[in-house]
Order: sequence, then structure tokens, then C-alpha cells
Amino acid sequence: MSNRPEGAVAQDEMPAPLTFPPGIAYMDGAFVPISEAKISVLDWGLLRSDATYDVVHVWQGRFFRLDKHLDRFLSSVAKLRMTLPLEREALARVLAGCVARSGLENAYVEMICTRGVSPTFSRDPRDAVNRFIAFAIPFGWIADEEQRRRGLDVAIARDVERISPRSVDPTVKNYHWLDLVAGLFEAYEREAENVMLTDGAGNVTEGPGFNIFALSNGRVITPDIGVLEGITRGAAIDLCAELHMPVEITSLPVATLKAAEEVFITSTAGGIMPVTRLDGTAVADGKPGTFTAKLAALYWDKHQDPAWSTAVDDILT
Amino acid sequence: MSNRPEGAVAQDEMPAPLTFPPGIAYMDGAFVPISEAKISVLDWGLLRSDATYDVVHVWQGRFFRLDKHLDRFLSSVAKLRMTLPLEREALARVLAGCVARSGLENAYVEMICTRGVSPTFSRDPRDAVNRFIAFAIPFGWIADEEQRRRGLDVAIARDVERISPRSVDPTVKNYHWLDLVAGLFEAYEREAENVMLTDGAGNVTEGPGFNIFALSNGRVITPDIGVLEGITRGAAIDLCAELHMPVEITSLPVATLKAAEEVFITSTAGGIMPVTRLDGTAVADGKPGTFTAKLAALYWDKHQDPAWSTAVDDILT
Repeated sequence: MSNRPEGAVAQDEMPAPLTFPPGIAYMDGAFVPISEAKISVLDWGLLRSDATYDVVHVWQGRFFRLDKHLDRFLSSVAKLRMTLPLEREALARVLAGCVARSGLENAYVEMICTRGVSPTFSRDPRDAVNRFIAFAIPFGWIADEEQRRRGLDVAIARDVERISPRSVDPTVKNYHWLDLVAGLFEAYEREAENVMLTDGAGNVTEGPGFNIFALSNGRVITPDIGVLEGITRGAAIDLCAELHMPVEITSLPVATLKAAEEVFITSTAGGIMPVTRLDGTAVADGKPGTFTAKLAALYWDKHQDPAWSTAVDDILT
Repeated sequence: MSNRPEGAVAQDEMPAPLTFPPGIAYMDGAFVPISEAKISVLDWGLLRSDATYDVVHVWQGRFFRLDKHLDRFLSSVAKLRMTLPLEREALARVLAGCVARSGLENAYVEMICTRGVSPTFSRDPRDAVNRFIAFAIPFGWIADEEQRRRGLDVAIARDVERISPRSVDPTVKNYHWLDLVAGLFEAYEREAENVMLTDGAGNVTEGPGFNIFALSNGRVITPDIGVLEGITRGAAIDLCAELHMPVEITSLPVATLKAAEEVFITSTAGGIMPVTRLDGTAVADGKPGTFTAKLAALYWDKHQDPAWSTAVDDILT
């Protein structure tokens, strides 16, 4: 059954074997190496991006705010009218099982529910068998070490705007990222390192995998609509309260962002990270802000605090 | 490496083996049964829906307008800055090879290019290894036999609008369908069979996998922006010209659609199909229109015309 087409394939088409980051996945009731974790090309999670997901991280052997990630994932699954094959507690044990078997101290742990395959390829989503997958791979950063030290250089996309919440509910964490990917290519062409998208009405929304914050006139502002309700965004808001910094969750005009004293982004993939250039111009004095640094330090401190984190081993015992 | 987590999985979680439609896929230089065609869960085609595709159909052993599908697919791949591992002619032979090996006389033939996996899980799309997949499965219809005879009962979504072309270029055929899937669920709740989405400004755009046409005041109207440039849409426009029916490619207000003499949809998955109810109310006299029937008959006639179709066997010899 498996054979090459006669003369159809050029010599240089034969693919090199794919390489993968180290990691462990869980699917169909078993743990497997990440390189073996695959879904059918007929899964509507691919063919319609009809899927939701969440990513929680593990730092020094502890999940950070696992309960909030589980809350959001279960809510997203329900909003898409999908069904998981396991309950909340079993889900937590599966995630911990991926991490433990991977041997990773610091991990990026993703859980996915797709619409799945319809045995008849019926176009009715109610006919599909929903699929659950989880995996743990090494922790990754949106900003590398140098970028975190000096701050990111970010472009605000001109050619593309973020998908509207009137089309796709951004509180359901989803894979509709072609706008963000187009924005990344635009940013690279403009020699920036990352991108922020607007709502088309002069306000920034979010970037690929991160929320946006500005410190402006003595308070912190972060956008209210058209954005993922990020868990790290929530952590930053809670930490601002600890530091007695007022927070406004409201529209954030590009002009306000560019005139801010400090700008930072938040993501599970790196926490709280400074932005020091926007559209080629320095933010304030062009150095990472002192409030941003204080907030980021507090954020990392919380990773050992049992009120904010859970040992992987405690879930498995 | 592969084992079940201790006590983590309920008995009823053990999945039943998935069943698949019959079919043949091509990936990594080989033809495989469709049930074995799988992509990594780390492929950005899944994790960012960073992918493009095209679907051409085979009817009685002949591809319909294959060149136009290849043109669009190659254009979509280029617009997303991806690279295919094979040239246009080899691509055609791979598609024909899938069909021939499947033994299907009538087939739905999909070609896909995903951003692929980044070996380091780098967030930069330029680091990923693009992936090409194709498959042939049995031909499928948006409207079943009864629906084609009496016309579809379609709802116009109120709760969701189509993703804007300012966010995602609809001329790049893409899998950003969560708005369309939400629309389908809304339609089912309203006891309709399918859904059309608007642009949020009172005009219809498209539905899940189909374009929309209205016959109104002696000419045919189909939307101009925010829609896929469907190959069947193009065929319908060309066939209208053959029948000396004027076509206007312009905005199509919901009110115009509802007051039309005839309404039909076009898709590779079924051709030209009548719509006889919109939001629970009959279109005109509630029967499939005579012009729609004439156009559909002409459409199917063209499937044996060498100017419009290509024998699968001719590509392989």
C-alpha cells in the first residue's frame, strides 16, 4: 500500500526525517514520545481549526496557576460544545504524567481538544468524535535572554488587524492565528522582533501568544475586548494590586501605548517581558522599566508559593 | 514508553478505534491508506492553523477544472510564504495517484500545505519545515439528495459574523472556520440545515464551504468581498455567461437575498444547489428555481467536456 508514485516525485523531494524537541504526549489513553503524537489529517481540528487548547507551564517542578488553566480549558471545551474523555482531576494527572515522564524541570504543557474525525466525513460537527491530546515539551520564551534584558523591539501591524470578537470568541483559546502570523512576517520585514495587532480602530489588542500592558500616568492599562483573557495577564493584574498599582482594563490606543512610561507583554511563554521599542522608536528612555522589572521579579517569586503553584509530584501521589 | 497513567483514566475513557472513510493519502513521498495519514501535534498547521489547502473533485473518473484549483493552491502557498516539495506537474500526478489508488470514480481530492514542525519549537514561522499532504476520499455533498430536490433550508447567522478580510485574506483558502462552525450550531438550534454569515454590515458573505448567489430582477448577484474566490463560483459565473444571464459581483444585502426570485449556493462539494428557505421563510414560491436547475444541469454536463475536465488516467500516462 505504501509506495512512491512512478516518476512523480523529484529526487530532492524525499523528506529528511523530522526532528522534534524532547517531550512526552498523552493520547488515546497512553503516554508516547512527542515524535509519535500525531492526529489524522481528517481531524476537523486541522481541517476547520475546530479546536481549543490551553498551555500551563511548570517551573522548577511546579505548575503555575494550574487551576486557572484547567478552569479556562474546561470552559473553552464547553463553549465549543465538545466533550472531554476525562474529568478535571484525571486531566491534571495526565498533565503531571506527561511532565514526570519527560523528566523536564521547566516545561510548556499543552492540552488540546479537537472536534475530531467524523467516520463518514460528514460535514455536521455533531457527527465527529472529539479528541483529547496533551503534551509536555521544554519551556520556551517569547523573548530570548538578551531580549528580556534590553527589552523587545515590536512593530504594530499596519497590513492586518486582529480577528474580531464578533467572528471568533477570543475567550475560547483558539488556533486562528493567520492574522498573527501575517503580522509576524510584516514585523520581520520592518526589522522588528515581534508584532502587536490592532482592532482596526486605533487600539492595540494582542500579539502572537501575549497580552499587552502600558504604564501611563501612574496606572497600568491593558485592553479589555478582542483579547485572550490570559492567565499571565490575570497574574500581572493581581500582582499590580499587591504592589498598590491601579489597573484599568479598557481600550488601549496606539498613541497611549507609544507615549507610555513603560510597556510590557505577558505570556505563559516567558511571564512578564519588557518592550522598549515600538515601530522603531524608543519607549520612554528605551530601557526596560523599573516597575516592569519589579513586577517580573514578583511573578517569578510566586512560582514557589503554594498559593500560586502546585508540585507536579503532589498531583501524582 | 507507552503506558496508561496509574489510576488516572476512567474505564470508559479507553477510546474505541476510529473509523475512517475509504481513501488514499500521499505524504512524505509515499501513498498510504487514509487511516494512516497523520501529522504531528506540533505541526503549526494544527497549533496555529497556519496552513492553506484546496479541494478539487473527480466525477466519473475526470478532474473538474483541475488547472484552476492548482493555480489557486500555488498562489495560496506563495502568499503564506511556504514552499512545496514538488512542482505543479508532479502535484497533479500525486493527486491523480491518490484517486487511481483509491479506486474511486467520484472523489473529493484535497491538497494541503502546512507551516510544519519547527525542530526546536521556535515561535518563528521561518524556522519550520513546511509539509505537503494530499488525499482522495469519496465525493461528498453539502446538500443530500432530498435537499437538492426540494432546496436547502438555511439560516442567516445573527450571533456571529464572517472573519473580516482585513484580518485573514479569504483569497488564501484557509481553515479559519470557528465562525462558520458557530454559525452551524446556531442554525441547528433554529432548526435550519445550514448557515450563511454576514459581514456585520447587512450583507451576506459565504457559508461553510460555499458561495452564495441570488437571481434578482433579471440578473444574478454574488458577493465581491470577504469571500473565497470559489472555483465553482467561477464556473457558475462562466455558465451564466453561456446562458446570457448578466452577473453582478457586488455586495449582496440580506434584504435583496430574501426578496430574490431564486437563491443558490456553489461548492466543489455538490456543485450548484438550490436554497428554498431563508430564516424559516420561503424564497419566492419555495420551490427550486428553473434557472438554478438549468445552471446545475449545464454544470454537470461540463464534467465530460475536455475544455472543463481532465481524465485521471491521462495525467498518469
